Amino acid sequence: MGPRTPTLVVPVDLKKKPWEQELPLHNRWHPQIPPVAEVKAGEFFRIEMVDWTGGVISDNDSASDIKFIDLSTVHYLSGPIKVSDVDGIPAKPGDLLSVEICNLGPLPGDEWGYTATFDRENGGGFLTDHFPSATKAIWYFEGIYAYSTHIPGVRFPGLTHPGIIGTAPSKELLDIWNERESEVQENGLKSLKLCEVLHSRPLANLPSPKGCLLGKIDKGTPEWERIAKEAARTIPGRENGGNCDIKNLSKGSKIYLPVFVEGANLSTGDMHFSQGDGEVSFCGAIEMSGFLELKCDIIRGGMKEYLTPMGPTPLHVNPIFEIGPIEPRFSEWLVFEGISVDESGRQHYLDASVAYKRAVLNAIDYLSKFGYSKEQVYLLLSCCPCEGRISGIVDSPNAVATLAIPTAIFDQDIRPKSRRIPVGPRLVRKPDVLKCTYDGNLPITRNPAAST
Amino acid sequence: MGPRTPTLVVPVDLKKKPWEQELPLHNRWHPQIPPVAEVKAGEFFRIEMVDWTGGVISDNDSASDIKFIDLSTVHYLSGPIKVSDVDGIPAKPGDLLSVEICNLGPLPGDEWGYTATFDRENGGGFLTDHFPSATKAIWYFEGIYAYSTHIPGVRFPGLTHPGIIGTAPSKELLDIWNERESEVQENGLKSLKLCEVLHSRPLANLPSPKGCLLGKIDKGTPEWERIAKEAARTIPGRENGGNCDIKNLSKGSKIYLPVFVEGANLSTGDMHFSQGDGEVSFCGAIEMSGFLELKCDIIRGGMKEYLTPMGPTPLHVNPIFEIGPIEPRFSEWLVFEGISVDESGRQHYLDASVAYKRAVLNAIDYLSKFGYSKEQVYLLLSCCPCEGRISGIVDSPNAVATLAIPTAIFDQDIRPKSRRIPVGPRLVRKPDVLKCTYDGNLPITRNPAAST
Amino acid sequence: MGPRTPTLVVPVDLKKKPWEQELPLHNRWHPQIPPVAEVKAGEFFRIEMVDWTGGVISDNDSASDIKFIDLSTVHYLSGPIKVSDVDGIPAKPGDLLSVEICNLGPLPGDEWGYTATFDRENGGGFLTDHFPSATKAIWYFEGIYAYSTHIPGVRFPGLTHPGIIGTAPSKELLDIWNERESEVQENGLKSLKLCEVLHSRPLANLPSPKGCLLGKIDKGTPEWERIAKEAARTIPGRENGGNCDIKNLSKGSKIYLPVFVEGANLSTGDMHFSQGDGEVSFCGAIEMSGFLELKCDIIRGGMKEYLTPMGPTPLHVNPIFEIGPIEPRFSEWLVFEGISVDESGRQHYLDASVAYKRAVLNAIDYLSKFGYSKEQVYLLLSCCPCEGRISGIVDSPNAVATLAIPTAIFDQDIRPKSRRIPVGPRLVRKPDVLKCTYDGNLPITRNPAAST
Amino acid sequence: MGPRTPTLVVPVDLKKKPWEQELPLHNRWHPQIPPVAEVKAGEFFRIEMVDWTGGVISDNDSASDIKFIDLSTVHYLSGPIKVSDVDGIPAKPGDLLSVEICNLGPLPGDEWGYTATFDRENGGGFLTDHFPSATKAIWYFEGIYAYSTHIPGVRFPGLTHPGIIGTAPSKELLDIWNERESEVQENGLKSLKLCEVLHSRPLANLPSPKGCLLGKIDKGTPEWERIAKEAARTIPGRENGGNCDIKNLSKGSKIYLPVFVEGANLSTGDMHFSQGDGEVSFCGAIEMSGFLELKCDIIRGGMKEYLTPMGPTPLHVNPIFEIGPIEPRFSEWLVFEGISVDESGRQHYLDASVAYKRAVLNAIDYLSKFGYSKEQVYLLLSCCPCEGRISGIVDSPNAVATLAIPTAIFDQDIRPKSRRIPVGPRLVRKPDVLKCTYDGNLPITRNPAAST
Repeated sequence: MGPRTPTLVVPVDLKKKPWEQELPLHNRWHPQIPPVAEVKAGEFFRIEMVDWTGGVISDNDSASDIKFIDLSTVHYLSGPIKVSDVDGIPAKPGDLLSVEICNLGPLPGDEWGYTATFDRENGGGFLTDHFPSATKAIWYFEGIYAYSTHIPGVRFPGLTHPGIIGTAPSKELLDIWNERESEVQENGLKSLKLCEVLHSRPLANLPSPKGCLLGKIDKGTPEWERIAKEAARTIPGRENGGNCDIKNLSKGSKIYLPVFVEGANLSTGDMHFSQGDGEVSFCGAIEMSGFLELKCDIIRGGMKEYLTPMGPTPLHVNPIFEIGPIEPRFSEWLVFEGISVDESGRQHYLDASVAYKRAVLNAIDYLSKFGYSKEQVYLLLSCCPCEGRISGIVDSPNAVATLAIPTAIFDQDIRPKSRRIPVGPRLVRKPDVLKCTYDGNLPITRNPAAST
Repeated sequence: MGPRTPTLVVPVDLKKKPWEQELPLHNRWHPQIPPVAEVKAGEFFRIEMVDWTGGVISDNDSASDIKFIDLSTVHYLSGPIKVSDVDGIPAKPGDLLSVEICNLGPLPGDEWGYTATFDRENGGGFLTDHFPSATKAIWYFEGIYAYSTHIPGVRFPGLTHPGIIGTAPSKELLDIWNERESEVQENGLKSLKLCEVLHSRPLANLPSPKGCLLGKIDKGTPEWERIAKEAARTIPGRENGGNCDIKNLSKGSKIYLPVFVEGANLSTGDMHFSQGDGEVSFCGAIEMSGFLELKCDIIRGGMKEYLTPMGPTPLHVNPIFEIGPIEPRFSEWLVFEGISVDESGRQHYLDASVAYKRAVLNAIDYLSKFGYSKEQVYLLLSCCPCEGRISGIVDSPNAVATLAIPTAIFDQDIRPKSRRIPVGPRLVRKPDVLKCTYDGNLPITRNPAAST
Repeated sequence: MGPRTPTLVVPVDLKKKPWEQELPLHNRWHPQIPPVAEVKAGEFFRIEMVDWTGGVISDNDSASDIKFIDLSTVHYLSGPIKVSDVDGIPAKPGDLLSVEICNLGPLPGDEWGYTATFDRENGGGFLTDHFPSATKAIWYFEGIYAYSTHIPGVRFPGLTHPGIIGTAPSKELLDIWNERESEVQENGLKSLKLCEVLHSRPLANLPSPKGCLLGKIDKGTPEWERIAKEAARTIPGRENGGNCDIKNLSKGSKIYLPVFVEGANLSTGDMHFSQGDGEVSFCGAIEMSGFLELKCDIIRGGMKEYLTPMGPTPLHVNPIFEIGPIEPRFSEWLVFEGISVDESGRQHYLDASVAYKRAVLNAIDYLSKFGYSKEQVYLLLSCCPCEGRISGIVDSPNAVATLAIPTAIFDQDIRPKSRRIPVGPRLVRKPDVLKCTYDGNLPITRNPAAST
Repeated sequence: MGPRTPTLVVPVDLKKKPWEQELPLHNRWHPQIPPVAEVKAGEFFRIEMVDWTGGVISDNDSASDIKFIDLSTVHYLSGPIKVSDVDGIPAKPGDLLSVEICNLGPLPGDEWGYTATFDRENGGGFLTDHFPSATKAIWYFEGIYAYSTHIPGVRFPGLTHPGIIGTAPSKELLDIWNERESEVQENGLKSLKLCEVLHSRPLANLPSPKGCLLGKIDKGTPEWERIAKEAARTIPGRENGGNCDIKNLSKGSKIYLPVFVEGANLSTGDMHFSQGDGEVSFCGAIEMSGFLELKCDIIRGGMKEYLTPMGPTPLHVNPIFEIGPIEPRFSEWLVFEGISVDESGRQHYLDASVAYKRAVLNAIDYLSKFGYSKEQVYLLLSCCPCEGRISGIVDSPNAVATLAIPTAIFDQDIRPKSRRIPVGPRLVRKPDVLKCTYDGNLPITRNPAAST
C-alpha cells in the first residue's frame, strides 16, 4: 500500500479552451453524452474543472466581459464519469450514487475568482430591476481567505463547494424537463405575479444548439444535431442535482444522487470559492476553476428505498445531502429581515421569494451606510458566507425571510450603535476609581480605555 | 448595589384567563392600546406571558381543542411597555429601540408545550392540502431538552425564543397594513398562483371586533368599538417586527425595532420552546407560556440612521437583529432539497415557497421510512431545530431551497446506508488480523466490533 | 400526565445558615453521613445549594470577608441523595451512577457571585507568590451574562456548572485518601520541587472536627466526634468525583460516577456561574448559590464494566463525563503559552503545572497593558471562559501549556497590532478611488472608513 | 495584478535526503545558521518541508525503523527565512514577527503519515513505563480525513498544523538555554519526583555535533564545529516558539514571535496532519511532510510593547498565538479525568503532569474495552483531535486534568450504556400504541425501531 494520492481522472489545462481539453467538457445534460472516464466504488479520484464560463472572464478592472458574455455556453462541466461497483458492475437506474467530497480547492497557479452581475438585457440577477448594469469584482485567495480590491475592507474564509454536481438524466426525465420548462416559458408572463419586475430575465432557457458542447460527440454530426436540440441547459437545479448551489457542500460532505442511466454518468463544475445563500447576483459566488477529490459508493435500489417521488412519475425526486464537519466558526451575526411586501408597498401572499428579496435589499441599504456603494454590497452578499433563511412561511399574508451576515468579515464594527454614552451597567464608567477595598491596599486601577 | 434580579413588570397568572390578568393582555396591534407598564433604558426587567392561545390547548391525547379553536383570539401579547431613556424622556417616533434578551424560558410549574396542525377549514398550515386534519403533539421539558410521547425516539435541546416581539404601529402605518391586506384578501384569489392548492387558507386576516382584546380599553365602550375595527391582527410579521418567528432569537440576542409611537409601546408573546425554520405546521413551534428578561436602550434618530425605507413611505422598514452566542452544537446534518416544481409536476418560476414546500415534503417522506407516520414528521419538522435555507434564487426557472435536520435528535441512525458490505478503506475489514509488526511482539488486536 | 416540573428534593433557604437548613447540609465526605432524600432512576428532580462558603462572602467592596474566612468550613454540599432503580432497589457498590444535568442556574433573587484570591497565609492560590493579598470581585448576572464593576469592560455568557458532584466514599476508600494525604502533608516539604515557591499553601487538608458539618448527625454526639475525625475534606477532586471543577459540565452533561456505598449517596455543591480552566485564583470561579435539575440512572455492575482501576485497589478509579451540547460560540481566541521554566529561569522537567503557571502569568502581564491591574486580570482569568490546555508533555525538558482567551469578552480589541500603516492587500488603501470600470458608469465608491 | 499564487521560497524534494536539498535544511537552533531565503512583509509565500525525521520512517507494517531511529538528527527544519519590511529594512531584535498561516497541507503525492512510540531505551514517551516498546501506525489521507489500517474503525478530519515554528535565538538566549538544560540534565535525577518512573527518558538533549545539520554551513569547517557544539536541539519548545505543538495552529492562525536576531530568521518544520493535546506518545502526531503558505508582518518594538519577560532577563518571553476560524465541528465528547495520584497510589501535590498521565491511562483502559489493544489507543490519543485540559490546579493536594475525546471519530457508540431497558421518558416505550386522538382518525403509528 502506498500514499493515498487520488487518481486524476479528469485533468484540465487552463491554457486551453473548453473544447480543446484532452477529455472534452460538456455544457448540457443528456443521457447520450458518453462518459470520459470510469471509476469504481471506493476509488479515491480527482476531477479538475474550468470556471463555469470556461475562462471568458478576466482578472482586470473592466466589466465588459461580463456585459457581453454569451450565456448560451455555460456551465462547462467535467465528466461524465461512469461509476461501477468493486466488481465492475455499473450503477443502474434506481440506485443511489453516494459521492463523498474528500477535498477540493482552487487549481495551483489560478488562485483567484470573480463575482458579477449580468446586464439586465443579458441574464440579470435577483435584483436586476434595482441593479440593471453589469458589474464585476475580482477576488484573490490567500489560502483559506479571499479579499478584493474592488470591495476593500472585507476578508473571509471560503466554504468552497461545487455549484453543480449531478447525474445524467434519462430520456424520459429529460422530456419531463423540456416539457415543463417550455410551458413556463410560453405561459409564464401571463401567470406569474413577479412578471412586471422581472420581465427582462429569461423565464427558462430551453435547449438550443447555439453554444452547445457535448463532450465526445463531434459537432456537426447528425448525432450532435439531434442531441443539441434535446439536451437540457445547466442553469437550474433539477431532479438530478445539478446546479443546487448549496453553500455548505464543502469538504467532508456526502451527496446521494439518484441514478437515471447506466453508470450514473456523474458530472460536476461551477466551483465556488465561497457563496452566500441564494447566490443573489446570479454570477454571484466567487466563481473559479478548481479541483475535487471524490469517493463514490453505490446504494443498490436506493432510489426506491430512500427517495419518494414528489410528482406524477417515479423520476420526480431530489438528491439528499450530508454536509461536512468543517465550517468557519463565526460568533456574531447581524440579521436582516424581509416580509412579502414588495417595493411598491404591495402585499404578496406568503411569497418567500419576495420576502428574501426585501431582506437582501434591506441588508444592501444598511451596509451601504458604512462606506460601500450598493453595487459593492450586492456583490458581497452574493459571495460572502451569509445565511438566507425562511423564518416564517405560514403567517398569512406575510412570508418572513432573513439574511444573516457574520460581522467578523468586516474590518469595522457594523452594528447599530447609540451615539450617546451608552446606558447599562456594562458601559457605565463612574468618574471615580472603581475599586474593591483590598486588604493589602492594592489598588484596582480602572480601565482607562473605557473612560473615553 | 444588590443582586441583579429583574424587575417583574408584567406578571401573568396561568390560572386566569387572558382578560382576567392583573395587567390586561391584548391580541391586536394599535397605537392607542395604552401601556400597562413603563421601563427605563438600562433597566433589567421581566415580562411573563401566556401561550399564544391563552390556555385553550390542553395537555392530553385529543386534538379536539385544536380542531375547534377560535383563531380570532390569537395571539395574546404582554404589554405594551412604554420605554424611556435614563432621564425619563420617552422613545420617540424615528428612534430605534434596542431590546436585549438576557434570559428566557418556561414558567415554573408549566414546563410543557404543544405542536399542532389546524384543520384545513380552520387555519390550515403550509402543507394543508397534504395534511388536512387537525393533529397535536404534546412536549415535556426536562431542563434544556424536550421530548414527546406522541413522537417517540426524538429528544432535542430547545433554542427558546419569543415568536412575537414588536412595537406599536402609528395610525399611518396601521392604515397602510389594512389597505394592502384588504387588497390581497379581495384580489388574491385571482392573481395568486398558489391559489388552487391553498384555497382554504385565509389569504389575510383583516381587523374584526370578534375575539378582540385591547388591554386596558374596556370592551363595549365606543373607544373599544372604534379601535377593534381598526386594530391589526397579530398573525403576520410586519414593519414593527411582530410575528417574525426567527428561531435563533434566543438568549443573548438583540433586536433593533423601529419606534412609531411615543414610548415605543413594546409588546411580546407567542413563546416557543423550539422551532424549525418556517414553522411549517403553522401552530408549529413548541408553543408555551414563558418569561423574558430584557434590557432596552434607545438609539435616538436611529430609524433614519440605520433603516432605509423599502417602499413608498418612510415607514416601510424592517427591524434588525443580532442573534445570541449560545446555540446547541450539532455536527451532522442531513439536508433535503426542493425545487420550484410542484407536486403536479408543474414548473414555477423562481418560487422559493414552492421549493421549500417540496424540500419539506421530501424530508417528511424520507423520515417516515424510519417508523414515523407522516403526520408525526410534519409536526417534528415544525418544531425541531432544523434550518430552512434559500440556496438558489436566480437559476431560472428553479428556485432551490433546502431543509437541514440535525441527525443527533434521533435515537437511531437516519442516514442512507448501503446494505452490502460497504466499500472503502475505512470499512473494509480483512479477515486476517490487521497489525503492525511491533518490536516487542505486542500484538495489535483488531477491532472485533468492526468485523461483523 | 402533567407538565414535567422537577420535584424539589433539597430546598435551601438563603436567609438561613448552612446548619439551619431544613435538610441539613454537610461539608465532609464520609460513608455514614445519612441521606437527606431519595430519588428513583428516571425521576426528574431539583437540588438547591448555597454557595460554597454558606453565605460568608458579601456583595460589597471590601475583601475583609475573604481575608479572614475560615476555610475549615467549606464546601457546604447538598445531599446526600440515595438513588434507587425503578423497582426501588438501591444502587450498590460496583454500579455506575449516571447523572444527567438537565438544567441549572442561580437561585431567583440571588443573581450575583464573586471571584476572589485568598491571602497567602490563609489558603493562597495558584499564583500566591505573585499575588499574596486577599482580593475580591463581585459579579452581577443579567440572564446569561455576567459583568463586574470591579473589572469593567468585560462581559461574558456563563457556562454554569457545579464545581462539586460526587458519591460517598466507602470506609475503605476514605482510609486510602486519609493515608495518602497524610503522607504528602508530612513528607511533602522535603520531596516537592515546588515547595520553595508554594511554601505557605497547605499541602493537604486532613480531617479535622473544626468547622465540620455532618448533615443529620448531631454535633456533639459520639458518632459525630468519630466521623468528624475521619471524614475527608472536600477541597480536592478524588475517585468519587467531588471537586472536579470541569468548566464544561453544564446543561445537558452526563456524569458517570462510581458507586461505593449502597444508595450511591450523591452530593453536590460549589456552583459556578462561569470558570476558567484551572480556576487559578482558587476561589476562582464566579461562586454562587444555585439549583440543579437532574435525572439519574443506574448502570448495574458498571464500575467493573467501564472503569479500570488505576492503582493498587479496585477503588482507584475516576468518573467519566459527557459534556453537553450547549456552549457559547466564540470565534476568536488569543493564546498564551508557557514552558516549564520558572520565573527564576530554572528548568523543570516536563512539568505541566509550571508551564501552565507561566502561561497564566504571561496572559496576566499582557492583558494588564490594556488598562487593567494584574490583580484584576488574575481574577478574570480564574472565572472567564478561558481554556487551559496541555499542548506538549513529551518534548524534554519542556512541557508546553497554553491558555486561550476568547477576545469577544472584552469591549476593546486586545490583539497585538502594528502602529504603522499595516501591510498586506487587505489593508492597503491607495489614495485614488478603487473601482472596476462598470458598464453603466456606476462608480464603486471606496470605503471612507478605511482611508483614515 | 494577477492570481495570488504564493512564491515558493523553500522547495523540498522528497526523493532527496535532508542534506541534499537545494536549499539545505537544519536541525538545530543557532543565530549563525544563515538564511536560505528572504521575504518581505505582506508577501504571500510557500515553504515546503520534509517530515521531522527527514524520511527515515517508511509506509509499512514494521516498527523497526522507529525502534532504531537516531534521534540526534531530528527535527529537520526549513529555513531560516530572513524577513524585512516593505522598504527592505530587516526585522530587528525587539520586534515582533507576525506570521499568518494562510494555508497548509500535505505535499502532493505524499499523502500519508505515521504515529509511533519510541522504545523506552531510545526516547520513550509520556507513558513509556506502561508501553516500553516501539510501535507504529500508518495513516492515509483522503482529503480532510485520515484513516489507518493499523487502528481500524476510526476516521477523523485533520486539524493540520506545523509542530515547530520559531525564530532564531540570539547568542545570549542560546547560552541561557544551554545553561539551564545542562543543569536539569546534571541535577535532575536527584531533584525530580518523577525520576523513578521516567528514568529511562533523557532529561534534556544537550548540544552535540552528532547528527547535526546546519544549513548552508559546510560540515567539517571550523565554523561548523563551533556552531555544532553550541546549537540547541529542537526537541523542546522555548522562548523562540519552536516545538510548541499547539494542535489548533491551523489555517487562519497567526503567531506573534519575538525577534532575537536581525531578519528574525524564521524556521519551521514537523508538520502534523492531526495531533491530540499533549502529543502523548512523543512521536505522537500524524507526522508528515507538507507545505505552509504564509504572510509575515513586523511589529516594530513589539517585544517591549506586548511581551513581558517572565524571568531574569528581557529574553525570557513566550510567543502569542491567535488560532484560526476553521475547526472540525464535534458535538459530543467523552471526557476522562485524572487526579495527581500515581499508579502506585501515591499522592503528588498539585502535579498536572501526573493528573494528565492518569487521565490518559483512564482513557486508554476504557477504549480498550471496545475492541482495541491498549497500544492502539495510546497511538490514537496521541494523534486524534482530543483536548487535554487543566481543569483544577488549586485544590490541594490534587490537580485535576481531563482528556476529552470526540465520539464521532469512532464507527461504534463508545458511550457507557446500561444493559437493562433504560429508564426515563425518552426511552420508555409502552407496549400499546402511543397516539394522540386525531380528529380525522389519522393514526399516529408508533416508532417500530424504538419498541425493541
